[in-house]
Amino acid sequence: MRFATYTANEQTFYGAVTDEGMIALNDAFPQWTTLYDAVAANGLVQLTEAAEGQAVTHVDFVYEMVMPNAPRILCVGVNFPDRNAEYKDGSAQPKYMSLFPRFASGFTGHGRNLVRPPENHTLDYEGEVAIVIGKQGRRISQEDAYDHIAALTLCNEGTIRDWVRHAKFNVTQGKNWDHSGAIGPWLVPFTEAKQLDDARIVTRVNGEVRQDDTLNRMMFPIRREIEYISTFMTLEPGDIIVTGTPTGAGARFDPPKYLKPGDVVEIEVEGIGTLRNGIEDEVV
Amino acid sequence: MRFATYTANEQTFYGAVTDEGMIALNDAFPQWTTLYDAVAANGLVQLTEAAEGQAVTHVDFVYEMVMPNAPRILCVGVNFPDRNAEYKDGSAQPKYMSLFPRFASGFTGHGRNLVRPPENHTLDYEGEVAIVIGKQGRRISQEDAYDHIAALTLCNEGTIRDWVRHAKFNVTQGKNWDHSGAIGPWLVPFTEAKQLDDARIVTRVNGEVRQDDTLNRMMFPIRREIEYISTFMTLEPGDIIVTGTPTGAGARFDPPKYLKPGDVVEIEVEGIGTLRNGIEDEVV
Repeated sequence: MRFATYTANEQTFYGAVTDEGMIALNDAFPQWTTLYDAVAANGLVQLTEAAEGQAVTHVDFVYEMVMPNAPRILCVGVNFPDRNAEYKDGSAQPKYMSLFPRFASGFTGHGRNLVRPPENHTLDYEGEVAIVIGKQGRRISQEDAYDHIAALTLCNEGTIRDWVRHAKFNVTQGKNWDHSGAIGPWLVPFTEAKQLDDARIVTRVNGEVRQDDTLNRMMFPIRREIEYISTFMTLEPGDIIVTGTPTGAGARFDPPKYLKPGDVVEIEVEGIGTLRNGIEDEVV
Repeated sequence: MRFATYTANEQTFYGAVTDEGMIALNDAFPQWTTLYDAVAANGLVQLTEAAEGQAVTHVDFVYEMVMPNAPRILCVGVNFPDRNAEYKDGSAQPKYMSLFPRFASGFTGHGRNLVRPPENHTLDYEGEVAIVIGKQGRRISQEDAYDHIAALTLCNEGTIRDWVRHAKFNVTQGKNWDHSGAIGPWLVPFTEAKQLDDARIVTRVNGEVRQDDTLNRMMFPIRREIEYISTFMTLEPGDIIVTGTPTGAGARFDPPKYLKPGDVVEIEVEGIGTLRNGIEDEVV
């Protein structure tokens, strides 16, 4: 079972995804206005039960960012060994992970265009697995970490590279351009460790493989991410952690291969799905 | 007129602040569950009208973080000339401001204790003025910037110093410890430019002045902050921008003067108020 947020007939719904279309679930759960509300109430099991055997509600629809009102999205930076080397600053492997929040406004949905702004054209892709927290916790051990994950999804952690280096510290302004990235297409409930432990992530641009790696090569595994983040903040149901991208972003080529209108980026993880986005120039 | 979020009889309300107590406004506005909802709907004028002439509802109450469900809080770092020099890294004045998000969970309310965690005792204060956006905008000019501000408040942008430097980039993990800072006590509607342009901010620890500066000395004035941030993201009503702290944080003394239980930090700006917080050790 998979769950998504989508728009049909100019109205936004959440529902279960089938090969034939969407089963809208809003009406069955008036207490949850959004998919985020359902996740925050630990309601994925109830959504699953409600969707079983139901007929498709919408065949024509457009995906939204998977939880457009998610208030907390934390991204892990520089989390594969070769990515650290890519920075060519001679630094040793870091002892702690780099973390930065992104606002939901920075992301669009599956099948929609990432937006390249007129101010700067260094729009770049980063393919990542995102986890959605399903159980509150503070100072969570690595052993218990997976018990706190409700669902998985994919993220194109799209970035305006030049703006990442604007400031003395922090990448905020390169990572929060409106609709510069995407999260989706849907949430897949997390039920087995191997969904993460055996996962391979592949990013393609116009069919050409640019990133191809396995999550078990992360410098800071997802269990450690949960342990570390929950040291300083209570993780809450509905929190999203974007877990880090492999080597091979466009900025690392010489010359760099930035995204431009007409390009199509696909991020694929078997068992989760494929997140596909085109590129468009913003009209100001 | 001032507006706050507070708890009385184990229930959370929002209302107007008077010298005698709180005038609860929830019942008058069932469409707005929280003060954030009212601000996001540009409702401060309606709250003001509803509160006028009303009797006090609650005399015994505890302040909460001023908008505990605010989803977007963006902080400006290193924004006073001497602060950049404090870093002693020989760097020139930066061309662009440093920005980092903080989650609302990192803040408590006026009159309550900041929490010093057992993992690290380098808890430090930073006195700042925070602005609350009242009108949506993208690519806002400096000339128009003040038209987008609905209200002002104060922030103790409390920080676990050692953790700010954990990662290769980004200060996230030093800036997001649960209840390590405070925002409040209340929102003051922004009606005149001089509320910001003439503002002087003073931070005292146990009565001793540690920070004392005027907002007109900022390297990146608030008008520029709004212009720059709105270049990459649409500012929305209810967004909070924490505008930067003067020189004099505890980390800059030799030896550093970090906060400990028993200390009281006061941040005062005439016309806004005084944000006062004690310190407590977290019991794990």
